Amino acid sequence: MNGLRDLTESALRDIVPVHWRVPSRLNEAIRYSLDAGGKRLRPILALAAAESVSGEEEARQRALPFAAAIEMIHTYSLIHDDLPAMDNDDYRRGRPTNHKVFGEAMAILAGDGLLTHAFYVASLAAGKGVPAERVLAVVSELSRFAGLPGMVGGQADDMLGEQGITSMEELENIHLHKTSDLIACSLRAGGHAAEATPDQLAALELFGRNIGLAFQIQDDILDLIGDETKLGKPLNSDEKQGKVTYPYLIGLEESRERVRSLTNEAVRAIRQAGLQRTDLLTDIADVMMRRDH
Amino acid sequence: MNGLRDLTESALRDIVPVHWRVPSRLNEAIRYSLDAGGKRLRPILALAAAESVSGEEEARQRALPFAAAIEMIHTYSLIHDDLPAMDNDDYRRGRPTNHKVFGEAMAILAGDGLLTHAFYVASLAAGKGVPAERVLAVVSELSRFAGLPGMVGGQADDMLGEQGITSMEELENIHLHKTSDLIACSLRAGGHAAEATPDQLAALELFGRNIGLAFQIQDDILDLIGDETKLGKPLNSDEKQGKVTYPYLIGLEESRERVRSLTNEAVRAIRQAGLQRTDLLTDIADVMMRRDH
Repeated sequence: MNGLRDLTESALRDIVPVHWRVPSRLNEAIRYSLDAGGKRLRPILALAAAESVSGEEEARQRALPFAAAIEMIHTYSLIHDDLPAMDNDDYRRGRPTNHKVFGEAMAILAGDGLLTHAFYVASLAAGKGVPAERVLAVVSELSRFAGLPGMVGGQADDMLGEQGITSMEELENIHLHKTSDLIACSLRAGGHAAEATPDQLAALELFGRNIGLAFQIQDDILDLIGDETKLGKPLNSDEKQGKVTYPYLIGLEESRERVRSLTNEAVRAIRQAGLQRTDLLTDIADVMMRRDH
Repeated sequence: MNGLRDLTESALRDIVPVHWRVPSRLNEAIRYSLDAGGKRLRPILALAAAESVSGEEEARQRALPFAAAIEMIHTYSLIHDDLPAMDNDDYRRGRPTNHKVFGEAMAILAGDGLLTHAFYVASLAAGKGVPAERVLAVVSELSRFAGLPGMVGGQADDMLGEQGITSMEELENIHLHKTSDLIACSLRAGGHAAEATPDQLAALELFGRNIGLAFQIQDDILDLIGDETKLGKPLNSDEKQGKVTYPYLIGLEESRERVRSLTNEAVRAIRQAGLQRTDLLTDIADVMMRRDH
């Protein structure tokens, strides 16, 4: 996983062509959030998916523009989610949020800029040997999974329903769109880079959907019983913010069981998909299930 | 121009596939701004550019997904620009702005959703006979002209420099990016739909850049000497908001002269580009120069 992470970091370092004139304050705001040191889960999954389909390490390079684009979309969503009108968060990963440092207006523009530029970066895959039709498929899927029926829609549902989520079904529906959709999209994007078959794409998507949901439940669990130092935030913040969580709805033990069963389903899906290798993705699923931050 | 406008309106009516589940409040917020009845200048130019290059009316259909996508991007930019943290406008085109009706959080998400979905809509051109390479070129150009070195960058420059614009050069640089870039992109997108040559694309871009700037100067002029009823807003709003305008910097007469000379340059560019017809675009340039609202 470290090799994939390093590759992602290097790709994210020069996403803006050097000859472009971009206002320096806007650039700083974007870099501040891109360099905040997330887990890089989505790009790592995109690269691992490409390598799993093709069996060749070279496939990583072809998937790299997609991986960077998805991390940019993830980052924009965090910047906008933290805004005062949205979740109104002052801190993320132990650092002041984007609007606390650069002001609300610049944070809105940094998010808009990252989202827009993600499509520029994704389109660069055509220059790395990915057929134009596949690049276009990824553009279309990115805009769907990150868009109105996906991440943006999930965020709207979350906000609209904040007071009244009472069932697992409602909660799961929100997380499926808010979190899992973009993760599922990462895996499909990696698959497209390695010219996966429709069946393989479907298996990768299912893997993504399941570990995306497991990831969210694990987050809820860690908020209750994690280590504050490792998490970089105080425990029980969900409860303080009145958030409805999995442990709140079904209890801690059943939440843990759900993480395990979702992870197992995810692994089963890709084992039956005729990939060249499955160890990369199963390792990532395993690390995610056991993570403590 | 009416035929092109009607075509745009019909394309904008069903931008979201019927089987998609989109939160209804989010959908309403998007429709509210899309249906606010703008001039549809950008999509009209995209359709006219396609028809000018090919000489066939059928080219409009191929350019339609690009035209709709660009109007969606324009609309998102208005929603975000009006936000309290940005220009803090309560009214646009005589109606309350998006965040006044739907709240700030939903307005941010409506903008994010429109921007994301624009790329989905643009990618549909591949199903209308536009080669994948051309669609990809438009995706890449859209994200550049609307993005960090384009519209978003121009908006950031505008905000950062609001207190201290003193020269024509600074003012023009902001408008070139904030307004002209997306207009130039519309013309190139239409050109790509009709498989224009690189020289034709460059001529269309130059046409767009010049009439985009002329459009902005005309706006400044109308704010001083227009008809409040036709404009749907009170006169002298620029001065009240402390905006630096062309008439403020170079006077009313010279501003008018600049509109004329930019329009002439625009028309000259496309007359030398070997297009199948130039009347559509020159007519639009003429109407824009003479407009009173």
